[in-house]
Amino acid sequence: MKNDSLKKIGDKILEYDNILIITHILGDGDTLGSAAALCQAVREQGKNAWIMIEDKVPEYLKFLVVDMCVEELPFKGNYISVAVDCSDMERFPERRKIFRSGEICINIDHHLTNTFFGDYNYVEPDSAATAEIIYLLLKAMKIEISKEAAEKIYAGINTDTGKFQNANTTARSHKIVSELYKTGIDHITVGIKLFQSVKPEKLMLENKIIGNIEMFYDGRGACTVVTQKMLEETGTLMEDTEGIVEILRSLDGVEISVFLKEMGEEEVKVSMRAKKEADVSKISSLFGGGGHVKAAGCTINKDISEAKEMILREVEKELEMIYG
Amino acid sequence: MKNDSLKKIGDKILEYDNILIITHILGDGDTLGSAAALCQAVREQGKNAWIMIEDKVPEYLKFLVVDMCVEELPFKGNYISVAVDCSDMERFPERRKIFRSGEICINIDHHLTNTFFGDYNYVEPDSAATAEIIYLLLKAMKIEISKEAAEKIYAGINTDTGKFQNANTTARSHKIVSELYKTGIDHITVGIKLFQSVKPEKLMLENKIIGNIEMFYDGRGACTVVTQKMLEETGTLMEDTEGIVEILRSLDGVEISVFLKEMGEEEVKVSMRAKKEADVSKISSLFGGGGHVKAAGCTINKDISEAKEMILREVEKELEMIYG
Repeated sequence: MKNDSLKKIGDKILEYDNILIITHILGDGDTLGSAAALCQAVREQGKNAWIMIEDKVPEYLKFLVVDMCVEELPFKGNYISVAVDCSDMERFPERRKIFRSGEICINIDHHLTNTFFGDYNYVEPDSAATAEIIYLLLKAMKIEISKEAAEKIYAGINTDTGKFQNANTTARSHKIVSELYKTGIDHITVGIKLFQSVKPEKLMLENKIIGNIEMFYDGRGACTVVTQKMLEETGTLMEDTEGIVEILRSLDGVEISVFLKEMGEEEVKVSMRAKKEADVSKISSLFGGGGHVKAAGCTINKDISEAKEMILREVEKELEMIYG
Repeated sequence: MKNDSLKKIGDKILEYDNILIITHILGDGDTLGSAAALCQAVREQGKNAWIMIEDKVPEYLKFLVVDMCVEELPFKGNYISVAVDCSDMERFPERRKIFRSGEICINIDHHLTNTFFGDYNYVEPDSAATAEIIYLLLKAMKIEISKEAAEKIYAGINTDTGKFQNANTTARSHKIVSELYKTGIDHITVGIKLFQSVKPEKLMLENKIIGNIEMFYDGRGACTVVTQKMLEETGTLMEDTEGIVEILRSLDGVEISVFLKEMGEEEVKVSMRAKKEADVSKISSLFGGGGHVKAAGCTINKDISEAKEMILREVEKELEMIYG
């Protein structure tokens, strides 16, 4: 599994007039920002480029892809297809065939688990965001990056690095953003759209969830739950609980935070975060889940109170190993 | 009011063995990060450098200034004094005389309102943080920036730019941080210390305050209050309400957020934020307050319900001007 050069990939893209860009399902700032930046930049070169999607673009990210998204193949003739930020083809199940029907299929990604499913592949796990790779690709293509394209790349980096705070952030992330600023990007407006459009219902839900936090193991552990009833009462969806587990972790002294989501009667999704020393992937793997050392999850097919008991028992063991 | 060059200022500092660094009261990440970076860097050059303070260093910032702070003048002989991030000498009222007793007094700052109170001055209002200027100063002094000094500069920039999201963030901010990364800084640990040490009591207070949010003018305005009773009930201090007004502003559709703090029986501090179009400094000035277009405040000597009514009347007028 070897990378092709961005120069070679760029040259291939420029050979085609029709360019189909594929994002992953449950789109985030990086896949949509990357797709939109590439689409914008090649359109500026006179290309006929579109982003094909198979599910809804989240409301707060719509500004990135205005007039760029289609749900059906928009070309009659030959095209090249480019998947961005997709670790494998299961990340775009309904568009798999259309992706493979491109004369050439390109795979640009930053996930360690990428399966190199393209005819040409560029996978850089050390890259904080796929959007960084899009920046390098456009440079390799000798395309001057416009303010519009730069704002989309910026959105990808800003979200995937968690406002430049996450472990994946590198010197290069900041270097690239510094260059993007020089195109005149309006980082304030992009930031407001990305992070300052919290639905009031979501805030009320968060408030309920945070009101129920339980601390344990001398404040080294923090746990809370969301139930279907809480979603109903606030008129929210499960996706509105995003970020809660990070709020738990941000508490002073907390090493492991646990957030349990009641998906159904006997189905509980568990998200865990560790701050410095604990390994939560060890715990999630006990329940058939996965993830990283500092961020992991699993599903337990029990009711929420039983699931909570089961997971906290293991979390306490991990804390005991560190502080015991 | 003209700046001296950083080269000249750096040469002056290097002429002295005793260096006294002055921060502003109610220390934040920028003043303490800047002071600590300078102290660290000149100590590495063999200098006898100390940071003099007159109030407590906030708990979450103590890691920046370990073994660097004194409350009395630590020298017998001559010294040079350097104030960092202080717009005027009222920002260090108890240390004014000691600052002025330095053989040479230096003033390094980024506040527009700086009074050029030093013998040598370097004030750059366009700099996102004073810490950026310290970086440039150390470069001008030809001092190689160590990982330790770099982490302190990073803390200053990361806090004063609001994780690189605030309007003051520039291409240079990111460029400098990119260079700081190359010294091997542990940005994750610094970030955890700066932002992931939220006291559980503070979170519970936030929870109470957010639970009382009132939306008005079709969701364009959001308002909430904190009373002395709420502080008592949660065992918190008024300073624990920092960040609330930004949470209010982050609500989708909210243009002006208002946060009222009951300081005493007839004393209410008002903080206001605007998102895109409104000017809250106009409103604060009606009540003898000050601030910027997007962030302003004032004090009203009424009970909290009366103060709220008075301020919301003016906020509604401003919203009416924009959306009416």
